[in-house]
Amino acid sequence: MTQDGPGEIAVIFRSQRNGTDPAGYAAAAAAMEVRAAAMPGYRGIESVRDAEGVGITISWWADEAAAIAWRDDPAHAAVRERGRALWYDRYEVTVAQVTRGYRWVRG
Amino acid sequence: MTQDGPGEIAVIFRSQRNGTDPAGYAAAAAAMEVRAAAMPGYRGIESVRDAEGVGITISWWADEAAAIAWRDDPAHAAVRERGRALWYDRYEVTVAQVTRGYRWVRG
Repeated sequence: MTQDGPGEIAVIFRSQRNGTDPAGYAAAAAAMEVRAAAMPGYRGIESVRDAEGVGITISWWADEAAAIAWRDDPAHAAVRERGRALWYDRYEVTVAQVTRGYRWVRG
Repeated sequence: MTQDGPGEIAVIFRSQRNGTDPAGYAAAAAAMEVRAAAMPGYRGIESVRDAEGVGITISWWADEAAAIAWRDDPAHAAVRERGRALWYDRYEVTVAQVTRGYRWVRG
């Protein structure tokens, strides 16, 4: 799990995959994680998808400018277009600014 | 997926389950979804867990006061204690305020 502090930006991506082109999707998802990690202000990414194809991915950014640069990244935009053409039945992106957090680890 | 608008609060709960007491966990998770939905300012909840036990749950609230009331709800606090005693190896809670969002549905 990432270190996320007050003021950081969470980009919350919720999606329903439809089962089309699983190999292409997997390759693109892996490439996007690598690309995001190379962007300025990147703080982390977490992704969970269940057996029904419902997924939540959260990318964490130092500030709003970093989140917007990621939104506007050309490779990211190209993958979004492929996602609408092929992989998703629906998705939702929500951007939110962190106000506080708490972490617990079994001792 | 929920309707979430600017100013709303996302409570992002990320966790690693350890496989202990799956029936007790499932019952408590279902009860907590019902209880959350009855709280003032509740806007929705979404939960995804993968085969490795990694989960992301996001509950959405009208404002900070509603999110705090949910945090302080006695039944919710009691379940958190059971979660630390039994179900989780680690978890992280992050509270963030929504600034913007976008939704796409296949036409």
